[in-house]
Amino acid sequence: MEANANHLPNGEAAAVLDSPTNPMVTPLLTDLYQYTMAYAYWKGGKHNDRAVFDLYFRRNPFGGEYTIFAGLEECIKFIANFKMNEGEISFIRQSLSGSCEDGFFDYLRELDCSEVEAYAIPEGSVVFPKVPLMRIEGPVAVVQLLETPLLNLVNFASLVATNAARHRFVAGKSKMLLEFGLRRAQGPDGAITASKYCYIGGFDATSNVAAGRLFGIPLRGTHSHAFVSSFMSPDEIIEKSLKSADGSTNCEDFVSLVQTWLNKIKAVQWSKSSNGDTNHSELTAFTSYALAFPDNFLALVDTYDVMRSGIPNFCAVALALNDLGYKAGGIRLDSGDLAYLSSEARKFFQSIEKEFCIPGFGKTNITASNDLNEETLDALNKQGHEVDSYGIGTYLVTCYSQAALGCVFKLVEINGEPRIKLSEDVSKVSIPCKKRSYRLYGKEGYPLVDIMTGENEPIPKVGERILCRHPFNESKRAFVVPQKVDDLLKCYWPGTSGKPRVELPSLNETRERCINQLEQMRPDHMRRLNPTPYKVSVSAKLYDFIHFLWLNEAPVGELQ
Amino acid sequence: MEANANHLPNGEAAAVLDSPTNPMVTPLLTDLYQYTMAYAYWKGGKHNDRAVFDLYFRRNPFGGEYTIFAGLEECIKFIANFKMNEGEISFIRQSLSGSCEDGFFDYLRELDCSEVEAYAIPEGSVVFPKVPLMRIEGPVAVVQLLETPLLNLVNFASLVATNAARHRFVAGKSKMLLEFGLRRAQGPDGAITASKYCYIGGFDATSNVAAGRLFGIPLRGTHSHAFVSSFMSPDEIIEKSLKSADGSTNCEDFVSLVQTWLNKIKAVQWSKSSNGDTNHSELTAFTSYALAFPDNFLALVDTYDVMRSGIPNFCAVALALNDLGYKAGGIRLDSGDLAYLSSEARKFFQSIEKEFCIPGFGKTNITASNDLNEETLDALNKQGHEVDSYGIGTYLVTCYSQAALGCVFKLVEINGEPRIKLSEDVSKVSIPCKKRSYRLYGKEGYPLVDIMTGENEPIPKVGERILCRHPFNESKRAFVVPQKVDDLLKCYWPGTSGKPRVELPSLNETRERCINQLEQMRPDHMRRLNPTPYKVSVSAKLYDFIHFLWLNEAPVGELQ
Repeated sequence: MEANANHLPNGEAAAVLDSPTNPMVTPLLTDLYQYTMAYAYWKGGKHNDRAVFDLYFRRNPFGGEYTIFAGLEECIKFIANFKMNEGEISFIRQSLSGSCEDGFFDYLRELDCSEVEAYAIPEGSVVFPKVPLMRIEGPVAVVQLLETPLLNLVNFASLVATNAARHRFVAGKSKMLLEFGLRRAQGPDGAITASKYCYIGGFDATSNVAAGRLFGIPLRGTHSHAFVSSFMSPDEIIEKSLKSADGSTNCEDFVSLVQTWLNKIKAVQWSKSSNGDTNHSELTAFTSYALAFPDNFLALVDTYDVMRSGIPNFCAVALALNDLGYKAGGIRLDSGDLAYLSSEARKFFQSIEKEFCIPGFGKTNITASNDLNEETLDALNKQGHEVDSYGIGTYLVTCYSQAALGCVFKLVEINGEPRIKLSEDVSKVSIPCKKRSYRLYGKEGYPLVDIMTGENEPIPKVGERILCRHPFNESKRAFVVPQKVDDLLKCYWPGTSGKPRVELPSLNETRERCINQLEQMRPDHMRRLNPTPYKVSVSAKLYDFIHFLWLNEAPVGELQ
Repeated sequence: MEANANHLPNGEAAAVLDSPTNPMVTPLLTDLYQYTMAYAYWKGGKHNDRAVFDLYFRRNPFGGEYTIFAGLEECIKFIANFKMNEGEISFIRQSLSGSCEDGFFDYLRELDCSEVEAYAIPEGSVVFPKVPLMRIEGPVAVVQLLETPLLNLVNFASLVATNAARHRFVAGKSKMLLEFGLRRAQGPDGAITASKYCYIGGFDATSNVAAGRLFGIPLRGTHSHAFVSSFMSPDEIIEKSLKSADGSTNCEDFVSLVQTWLNKIKAVQWSKSSNGDTNHSELTAFTSYALAFPDNFLALVDTYDVMRSGIPNFCAVALALNDLGYKAGGIRLDSGDLAYLSSEARKFFQSIEKEFCIPGFGKTNITASNDLNEETLDALNKQGHEVDSYGIGTYLVTCYSQAALGCVFKLVEINGEPRIKLSEDVSKVSIPCKKRSYRLYGKEGYPLVDIMTGENEPIPKVGERILCRHPFNESKRAFVVPQKVDDLLKCYWPGTSGKPRVELPSLNETRERCINQLEQMRPDHMRRLNPTPYKVSVSAKLYDFIHFLWLNEAPVGELQ
């Protein structure tokens, strides 16, 4: 059992939790059929039948062998605040058939999740196919209404957190990862959701100001090409003075100081490879930006030509700032051959450090940001590069290489009777019964296998041999002697069960859990190329029951 | 010029427009660098420089040769309501460097879009690469702040509307198209946005109740597999009576009536191909659903086995309903070989019509809904099928085959001076100048070419020859004698220009525009395989100017 599960005193289930981040997440954010079913259940007197549903996915995304579970906090906030107002009820009335009875709308008016129990794997955990991420129990009609919003809140959150973790894996721990996806994301909270869950998945900061405010995620940003091209000539700069960092002196004409440095750089650096003129608009823009942010001067250097204009212009401004005691923040490359340009920029910085004796200048931060993804990061690593930070947008936040995760929500028990959903495709057959799930660890500390058991089976014990069976392949089975056992499902919303409720962790705690869990995994599960599948199993007893129920429910054909 | 541009009386620019649909769309939904730039502009006294930005994309999505422009209404509502509150300003203050001067925050406090002018192609139009979808003019600092939210609101909206239009194209006009994507969409309003813009792109309805309420989109839905498997036996149905449709009679035991029909069907239909037992849970679930919705009975028929259980069970209930004067709504198939199963189901319905003399029963509606996309719709068409309606989710709403559209926002003029953004990649060079754009139509009524000109060039005239040049390929040019000329950019937000403002159309008007414009296109631009690119051009004068400016801004290298 995990030690850090933070239990609240009994009876705090009804404690007030904030609403979901997006005010559009209401009981109407669901499929119409959830309401038609709710009516049919109610009409048949079946709405309070006690149902158990599992929320799980069938396949890891991005060709990998792991997934990060995310979105739980929003789900629990949604459950905690589930209540329909009159406007919503009246819209449901007008959307259903005119023949629906009034009593149903009285029922909706009183509906909340006080009788629902929600169990889940902690957010930020590494998770695997078929193992329930959440188990929701309660009156069948209300749990059905929750299906679509819970899936919506978990599917993309988990997908994009996993994508972020994969980008972190390729980039390496030492790099700064910035999420820059707002403009290309799938709608406003496609963006805000991405910012939140990329942070959980291991990113360091975002450009999205709204996400920074909502979640306390660190913000990063410099300027754009438009800023550079909006300047025409140095004459545009009217206020040219700049105080030194320590306030002791005042440079009356910072523009001239920059020009002086540019001339020095020209003299020693690139007289042979160019006619020597850098772009004036760019130099003016950099100077102007430095006057506004002398203590945080960052420059986008590819508006005209990186090596012939952007880098020397940046260095001129950075060296002028250095004269006044300021340290420049660095450059951003947004186009071209990033491996080559970052290496050339590094050489340039190093030669400036040497030529003008500016200690540390060679280490000036280089950020790259041109349509990056896992593959381009991997290619950069193979080519060799000098990039310190990556700004990643489109491919990260839209999960371009696989834009959806297929979480499903399946009925596994009703009124104590196990239920199964059959399919001609074995991978789509559901695992019936109200279940428990455990993660079993081996001698080396790595997780070995997840195992699902019936609710009332004994808990696997450390040091005791247990048979783990593949749920659908008769021949795949193995004995395991766990060195550690984690009970995966925690109670986040106890309903009227009287069970203690686990408190929702902070965003940073969830992020740390994610990073720690990823580090705990055996490396062969994590590699990009041909990763080893992690094993997911059921107990011998559950295996037998699945196959008994399957035969029982499937009609028998006759070959002709 | 178009006749239907609905101009408001002069001076109504400041008329109150609703806020954007999602309350999370605020001035903070932008990249941090827009605020750092705003500060740098302000600090340098440059914030009120008059800037012109173009919003456009560079390539059509999904391997096609057209795009639907969508998202404009939300953009204009955002512009109309752009105003920062104290909480937002204080968050910006804490996010920027501590050295920023107080005056800037006073400036933000007063900031709105009263001096901004927004021109755009009407929402729902068919549009092409490089031609500005929107042209935004105004003080450079505020227009920069708008960049990210406008891109966010246009990028996904246009992408998903285009995806919907492409699905409609393959499905054909006669099919009913239902958007079922809420559970797999990229977050809550990834879903709501998709529902709205799929409707514009030609879908007929959505399952998303929240979107139905917000936008008045028709809603559709039946029941899920869980509903079917939540029933165990006919004994669960307590209230078994059902009034006839005209209220004249009452069937005391509808459950028995269904069973009688099932026996009749068994006797004639499939005694040879099965042991004859349909699934009892399923029959009970269908019966119960029919008791709740006798006038709209729809059944999901693939929980256990479509042909051996779902279809006969559906028919038994439908025929019992028919006895009482109700017409069943139809079936939904959610797995398996949809071409085969829909054809078999159709045959079954037709034989029931014939056997029991139920006119029209053979035409019972068949909906299909299993991970459909353009390719599977195309494959179904080629194989032959009997599907009447498609429920499309994941691939549609996440734009799985291409999850992002690359709209950009580029500075083209500042203080009357044209600006260009260079790049080593020619396709990324921006087209400078404040421009006008026209669509020129040929003799057969099809659009022939879009042409951009400088703001003050003469408007192309019907019947007069005009030279259209490819903006970046010297040799590609053609004379056109237009039979009709559309001025593409309309004024949606006149700022202080005094120009009349075009009113925002209703959602249904936008949807009709989209459908009409798609029908107007020459078919070879629209086909799925190897479509012909539509031509986008510039005037001879603009061509010359682009290339003059390009040479002027690019540094000259020296080969070594």
